[in-house]
Amino acid sequence: MTDAQLEKYKVKPGSKVNLHKIDANEYKQYSGTKEIALEEMRSLNMRLDELQKTQHGEKSRKILIVFQGMDASGKDGAIRNVFHSVNPSGVYVAHFGAPSRMELSHDFLWRIHQKAPANGEMVIFNRSHYEDILIVRVQNLMPKKVWERRFHHIVDFERMLFDEGTHIYKFYLHISNEEQRRRLQERVNNPDKHWKIDPNDFKDREMWDKYIESYNDVLNRTSRQWAPWYIIPANKKWYRDLIISNILVKELTKLKMKYPKPKMDYSGIIVK
Amino acid sequence: MTDAQLEKYKVKPGSKVNLHKIDANEYKQYSGTKEIALEEMRSLNMRLDELQKTQHGEKSRKILIVFQGMDASGKDGAIRNVFHSVNPSGVYVAHFGAPSRMELSHDFLWRIHQKAPANGEMVIFNRSHYEDILIVRVQNLMPKKVWERRFHHIVDFERMLFDEGTHIYKFYLHISNEEQRRRLQERVNNPDKHWKIDPNDFKDREMWDKYIESYNDVLNRTSRQWAPWYIIPANKKWYRDLIISNILVKELTKLKMKYPKPKMDYSGIIVK
Repeated sequence: MTDAQLEKYKVKPGSKVNLHKIDANEYKQYSGTKEIALEEMRSLNMRLDELQKTQHGEKSRKILIVFQGMDASGKDGAIRNVFHSVNPSGVYVAHFGAPSRMELSHDFLWRIHQKAPANGEMVIFNRSHYEDILIVRVQNLMPKKVWERRFHHIVDFERMLFDEGTHIYKFYLHISNEEQRRRLQERVNNPDKHWKIDPNDFKDREMWDKYIESYNDVLNRTSRQWAPWYIIPANKKWYRDLIISNILVKELTKLKMKYPKPKMDYSGIIVK
Repeated sequence: MTDAQLEKYKVKPGSKVNLHKIDANEYKQYSGTKEIALEEMRSLNMRLDELQKTQHGEKSRKILIVFQGMDASGKDGAIRNVFHSVNPSGVYVAHFGAPSRMELSHDFLWRIHQKAPANGEMVIFNRSHYEDILIVRVQNLMPKKVWERRFHHIVDFERMLFDEGTHIYKFYLHISNEEQRRRLQERVNNPDKHWKIDPNDFKDREMWDKYIESYNDVLNRTSRQWAPWYIIPANKKWYRDLIISNILVKELTKLKMKYPKPKMDYSGIIVK
């Protein structure tokens, strides 16, 4: 995929996006087949592995990849498939569930900051500090003035990370309301998956429109050139993975990362 | 492989092992071929993935897997190959390099403890608290009375982890002196790998016998039924991976982990 093709998934800072108008079924316009996509994925997987290896060797950049999306939008699956071939030593996935009592007694960025990547590290956030606007707002957990000022705090925080050498990529997995219904029903129909279901998943679904409204705000107000949001059409899993992988490989390639110089000249040395 | 076959790699508590007498080339007695081994690996990889998924769902046990071995013994490669198919969200690899100034200003277990697994987590230590005996002793970084008492502290620490629900498996990757020479020479012969070489790797090699002596002590004094050491013949990479995978799959299967019960009866629910 060309830069121009991928660029359209990026939320341009200052622009106005509306999730209601974005097609979660875009795969239907894809000219290839699922088989072609999976073939391409294999090669993207390998390239991402190479890029991570180089980043790890170079040890001068930090990479942070954020995944957000509704329940059943496929965050776990996307992370698994996109990073399938990356060395497990090289990538760390941080999950941010409901905050613990101790976490709640700190500011909302406290637990997030602790998981931020160091030089040479690639960290993936499965949910993130954005929940501290989203859930908080939709479920009315705190007054508006609290979550409202967090937009600024998040932008400032990410700017600081960027200024200190962190490259940030944020993915919103966009599924349709009908697709979520289908996936939740699938879980219900499969008794082996019942242990995974939380009764709250159904309640959250009733708030769909409020979530979309909140996501619209997040996407419109926190996308920056140095920490862009990408909206990924995610009704088809293989298409979702293909787009994310293409974006990451393209963006990380642009960083022109390199292995460091050897510490000395080792040529001709005979190990005894 | 049968339990009995795998049992021989375990250092029986109270027994006396001597690395000088253990064959790092055991693969030569293997009745299968490399191809058969790789085929078996694929199925072991899948089973390990299943076991991790169940552990993660069950959320009542902590799993800690420790890798130790000389330079070039293949710790990185083994971790990569053995955990290749495990969900990157499900496994965290902690590397313990030379301690930072802040880490050094704490007790030696301080930085280790922070990376210990929680319920449902699988954590891999690439090097570990054992370095605080091994390197310290071989390089004479601290007086004998300091590293000597650490044997007890480590055993006590691991016992505490076990009593609190942590299952511990420790792998020593056993290569021969000649194999290490060959691997280091290979790195020297490949200019693309020079950035990875540390001149100290060659100095460490001069201390080979002192390292073996120290490892012998560690293996003999810190293997317990509840935190056993396994000595893995590691001159051939595919054989090393095959043995480790077999042991892990066998041991984790014994834990009889199960997905939790559903929170309620979801049968017949229609998602709207």
